Amino acid sequence: MIKLDFEIALYYTIFDPSCDLLFNIHAAMTRCQTVLHENLYVDQATTTDLQTDVDTGNRWLRMQGFAGPLTVRYNATISISHYMTPPEQLMEVPIAQMPLSVLEYLNPSRYCQSDRLQKFALNEFGHLPRGYTRVKAIHDWVLRRVRFSVQTSNASTSAMDTLVEQVGVCRDFAHLMIALCRALTIPARFTTGIDYGAALDLGPPDFHAYVEVYLSGRWYIVDASGLTVPMGLIRLGTGRDASDVAFATLFGSVKSSMPQIKISAIEDFANNYEIPYNSTDILSTDP
Amino acid sequence: MIKLDFEIALYYTIFDPSCDLLFNIHAAMTRCQTVLHENLYVDQATTTDLQTDVDTGNRWLRMQGFAGPLTVRYNATISISHYMTPPEQLMEVPIAQMPLSVLEYLNPSRYCQSDRLQKFALNEFGHLPRGYTRVKAIHDWVLRRVRFSVQTSNASTSAMDTLVEQVGVCRDFAHLMIALCRALTIPARFTTGIDYGAALDLGPPDFHAYVEVYLSGRWYIVDASGLTVPMGLIRLGTGRDASDVAFATLFGSVKSSMPQIKISAIEDFANNYEIPYNSTDILSTDP
Amino acid sequence: MIKLDFEIALYYTIFDPSCDLLFNIHAAMTRCQTVLHENLYVDQATTTDLQTDVDTGNRWLRMQGFAGPLTVRYNATISISHYMTPPEQLMEVPIAQMPLSVLEYLNPSRYCQSDRLQKFALNEFGHLPRGYTRVKAIHDWVLRRVRFSVQTSNASTSAMDTLVEQVGVCRDFAHLMIALCRALTIPARFTTGIDYGAALDLGPPDFHAYVEVYLSGRWYIVDASGLTVPMGLIRLGTGRDASDVAFATLFGSVKSSMPQIKISAIEDFANNYEIPYNSTDILSTDP
Amino acid sequence: MIKLDFEIALYYTIFDPSCDLLFNIHAAMTRCQTVLHENLYVDQATTTDLQTDVDTGNRWLRMQGFAGPLTVRYNATISISHYMTPPEQLMEVPIAQMPLSVLEYLNPSRYCQSDRLQKFALNEFGHLPRGYTRVKAIHDWVLRRVRFSVQTSNASTSAMDTLVEQVGVCRDFAHLMIALCRALTIPARFTTGIDYGAALDLGPPDFHAYVEVYLSGRWYIVDASGLTVPMGLIRLGTGRDASDVAFATLFGSVKSSMPQIKISAIEDFANNYEIPYNSTDILSTDP
Repeated sequence: MIKLDFEIALYYTIFDPSCDLLFNIHAAMTRCQTVLHENLYVDQATTTDLQTDVDTGNRWLRMQGFAGPLTVRYNATISISHYMTPPEQLMEVPIAQMPLSVLEYLNPSRYCQSDRLQKFALNEFGHLPRGYTRVKAIHDWVLRRVRFSVQTSNASTSAMDTLVEQVGVCRDFAHLMIALCRALTIPARFTTGIDYGAALDLGPPDFHAYVEVYLSGRWYIVDASGLTVPMGLIRLGTGRDASDVAFATLFGSVKSSMPQIKISAIEDFANNYEIPYNSTDILSTDP
Repeated sequence: MIKLDFEIALYYTIFDPSCDLLFNIHAAMTRCQTVLHENLYVDQATTTDLQTDVDTGNRWLRMQGFAGPLTVRYNATISISHYMTPPEQLMEVPIAQMPLSVLEYLNPSRYCQSDRLQKFALNEFGHLPRGYTRVKAIHDWVLRRVRFSVQTSNASTSAMDTLVEQVGVCRDFAHLMIALCRALTIPARFTTGIDYGAALDLGPPDFHAYVEVYLSGRWYIVDASGLTVPMGLIRLGTGRDASDVAFATLFGSVKSSMPQIKISAIEDFANNYEIPYNSTDILSTDP
Repeated sequence: MIKLDFEIALYYTIFDPSCDLLFNIHAAMTRCQTVLHENLYVDQATTTDLQTDVDTGNRWLRMQGFAGPLTVRYNATISISHYMTPPEQLMEVPIAQMPLSVLEYLNPSRYCQSDRLQKFALNEFGHLPRGYTRVKAIHDWVLRRVRFSVQTSNASTSAMDTLVEQVGVCRDFAHLMIALCRALTIPARFTTGIDYGAALDLGPPDFHAYVEVYLSGRWYIVDASGLTVPMGLIRLGTGRDASDVAFATLFGSVKSSMPQIKISAIEDFANNYEIPYNSTDILSTDP
Repeated sequence: MIKLDFEIALYYTIFDPSCDLLFNIHAAMTRCQTVLHENLYVDQATTTDLQTDVDTGNRWLRMQGFAGPLTVRYNATISISHYMTPPEQLMEVPIAQMPLSVLEYLNPSRYCQSDRLQKFALNEFGHLPRGYTRVKAIHDWVLRRVRFSVQTSNASTSAMDTLVEQVGVCRDFAHLMIALCRALTIPARFTTGIDYGAALDLGPPDFHAYVEVYLSGRWYIVDASGLTVPMGLIRLGTGRDASDVAFATLFGSVKSSMPQIKISAIEDFANNYEIPYNSTDILSTDP
C-alpha cells in the first residue's frame, strides 16, 4: 500500500463582480484510493459545494468567487491499495461482456478522433496478439514517435495533430494513445492526477495526465508519456479526454497564476505503507 | 398526449464468421415517454442482450451476428406526455444550480468543438437576453445560414466545418447548434429519433437528429434543422453528439442496406391521444 | 517516342444568363511533349481565349458560356520524347543549386501541409540514403499504407487526412506523397493528365493525378497511386496541388455531366513511335 | 513620394557543421518601389547568392551558414512613388480580363482555404455592390470580429481557424481577409513588409503582414489588421500566403534570436519626399 500527502494551491484574480468556478482538485474516491484526511481552504467568504460522480469517483467543487484575489488550497492524505496484475494475464474484453458504462469509452471524443484513426491503427497494430501485448505495442510506438516538449501544443491539439506532428506534452501523449486504443476497440480513458514520481525528476510537481485502459474487467493505468512511476499517481479525475476533467473551469474574467503542488510519500512499514516503486505488474485503482 | 406506432427494420450481410453488433433502436424510456408494447425480431439464432442506461434512458441492444444475411426488426407502440412550457418562461440555469450530470453537456465533444467557438458565439449572441430568447436566436441563425442538402457532409463533419461551409443534414445542424449553445454555457445534447412529421413531407420516414437544451431545470427539444413537428419525435438515444448514439455499430465486416422505417400516429380522443401538431410551447420529454 | 491521340468531351448545363469558364484540358507544351495537331469544338457562339503559362507549359482556356446546354470537346495528337534516367543516377539537388522557380515547390500548399509532416517524414524516411532511393521509399510507403477506394475522400481531403485515414483516390495519393517529399526538402508538384495505361485496366479512361519530383535538375514522373504506365501519361497541368490545376473551374450556376475521354496509342516503327511500356528508367517530360 | 531608411538585423546560432539559409529581407523591386542604396553584411565567410523573381519582384538571398554564431544585417534606402486611386473608382476585374499570372491568386492555399469559405463569404458579402465597397466590407468585418492578440495563434493557424476563433496577429488577419476575397472571386495575396507606422505605435518595429487585392488592373494595399499607415509599408515579399514569403527559412539545426529592425522616414520637400500619412486614396506599389 501507498500513503501520500499532497497539497494543491491555486491562485486567481477575479475581475468580474462575481463568477462561477468549477474545480476537480479533490482526490477521487475509488475502491482502491481512500481519502484518509482532507482540508479545503478558500480565502473568500463563499459557499463551497462538493459532489461526487458515482460512476467515476470524480469529485467536483463548485463555488462563486468575487472580484479580487482568490486562493483555493486543498490538501489530503490518501492511501492507495493497488490492484496488481502481471501483464501477460491482461486480456481484451469482448464487446458483449463490457459493462454498459464502459462502452462510451470506445467512442471518439473532442481530442481523440478514434473514428478517423481506424485504418492507421489496424495497419500498425492490427496483426498483433490481443491483450496487453497490443496495448504495450501502442504505448511503445507513441513513446518512440512522439517527443516530449513543452509549448509545442495548445488547448486545441488533438490526437490527430499529435499523430502527424509527433511532439507534445503528457496530455497529447495520452490523447494519441487513447485514440489508437479506441480505434482497435479497446476502451480507454483520460485520467488526471498528481504525480509523486515526477516530483523527483522534472522540477516542481505538477498536474499530470495519463491513460486508463479497460482489460480483464478493470481499468489499468498506463502513463502514455512514460515520465512517472504509475504507483505514485494520485487520481483526481477521469473522463473521455481532457475536456472532461479540467482541474479548473472559470466562468468569467479571471487571471490565473501558476498552481503550486506539493506531494510526499509516507513510508510506514508497520502499517504496510511502501514508497512507490516501478512495478512489473500493471496497476489498477478502479475495478 | 401522443400515441405513436413505429417500426424499424435493418438489413445486413455479415462477411465475418461472427461479429458483435450494438444497436440503439429501442424507444428510450423517460418520465414522459412510455413504451406500451414492443417487439423485436431477429432472423438469426442468437442471444439478444438489452440494457437501459439509467442516466439517459437510452436502451442498448447487443448481439452476435453470423455470416450471411441478417434482419433486425423492432416495432413499438409508445405514448408521450410532453411537458410543455411557454418560451418566455424558459430561463438559463446558473452553473451553481445545474445537477452534476448536466455539467458534461457543457464540454466540447468530437463533433461539437464549443471550446473553439466561444468568441464567435459571444460576438454573435453574447449581447442577447439570456434564456430561450438566446437559444431561439442561435436556432434562427443556424437555420438562416446553413442550407439543408444531402451528401454535402460526411461522418467526419463537425460543427466547425458546418460553421464555415454552411451546408449539411440534420445531424450537422444539430452539432452546430449544440456547439454554439455550449460556447455560451448553455448545456446542450444530441438526440436521435424517429420523426412522425417528416413522414409527411420528406419522402420515406428516416432517423432524425435534433437537439435538447437544458433550461429551467429540464431538457427541452429544439429541432435545429427545423424540418419536423417536435411533438412527433420519438426519442431513441441522447448523448454528447452523434458519436454517442449511432443507431447501429457493427464491429466487423458487414454490408448495410437502407433501413426501413414506418411510423403512424393514433388518434384516440376518448383516451386523450391527439395527432402531433405544431405547438407554440416548447416541449420536454425528459425532466 | 510515343504518339497518342486523345479526346476530352465536357458537358454542362448553365443556369445563369452567362458565366465565366476556365479550363485546363489542352495538352501542356513542354520541351518533351509536342502537340502535333489539335482541335477545339464549342457548341455555343462564344470567344475562346487560350493562353500558355511560360513557367509550366500549362494552357488555360477561358470563355463565357450562356444559359442552356454546353459541350466543349478537345482532341489532339501529341508526341512525347521522354527523357529517361536510371533510378540509381537520380540525386537530390542541394538547396543552393535549385533554380528560383523550383523553390516554391518546397512550400506547403492547400492540400499538402508539409510543414506539419516534417517530424513524421524524418522519423519514417530521414535515415534513408538521399536521392531516388528515398523518393522510392516514400512511394512504397504510400502505396503500402493507402488503399485506393472511390468516394472515400472529397474536395477538402488533404495530405494530413490521407496520412491518418489511409484511403483515397489518385489525387489523395499524390497529395500525400508530395507533402512527404517537401517535408524532406525534395521539391514535388502535382500534375494532372490523361492516362493511356488506365484505359486498359480501370474501365473508361479518366483524368489522372500524379506527382513530379525534382531530382538531378529535372522534374521526374512518379505515379503515386501506382495505377498507370507513366510512359502513357499525357500532361495537362502542373502546379502546387489540385487547387492549381482543376480541369474545369465554373464561375456560376452550372451542372456538370460525366466527362468522356478517349485515348489511343499509335504504333509507327518507321517513325520510332512505340506503344507505352513499363520502363525501369524514370521518366521526365520537363527538363 | 516617400523615402525610407531601414535596417534588418538577424542573429542565429548554427549547430550543424553547415546549413542552407534562405532569406527574403531585401526590399522588393517593383515599378513603384525603387532601391536607392543597399548594404548586406554577413559575419561569416560565405558566398551570398541573390536572385529576383521577375513575376513578383521578390528578392531571395541564399547562402550557406556554418557552425557557430551568424549575423545577417541588411540596410537600404528606398523610395516609393505610390499609385493612388480614390476608393470609389476601384472595380472588380472580370475573370475574362484578368492576366494569367493573377488567376493563381484565386486559388486556395495552405493558410487560406477559400474553397471552404465560399458559402460563408456569399452569405455575408454576396449581396454587396462589387468593387472596393465589397473589399472594404470584408475588411471591416475582419476588423470588427478578430481581436489582435499575440501568442493566440501559431504557425499552423489558418483562415478557417481565425474565422472560428476570432483572435490572432497580423498574419492571421491577412489570411482571413485573403480567403474571404478569393471566395468571392477577388484575387488577393499575402505581402510581408517593414512598417514605418507601427514603429510609432506598437513598440519596436517588426515585420508586418498585409494584403494586396487585385482591382481595376492593379494590386492595391489593404492592411487587414488596420495597425499601420499603408503609405509607410516597405514591401519585401508577396505570395499566396505566409508559406511563400517567410523572411527566413533555415534548413538545419539553428537557433534564432529576436530580429532587430530600424526604420525612419526622410522628409525632403525639395525632392518631393513626404512623411507617410493616412491617405483617403487606396495605394498600389505594383501595377
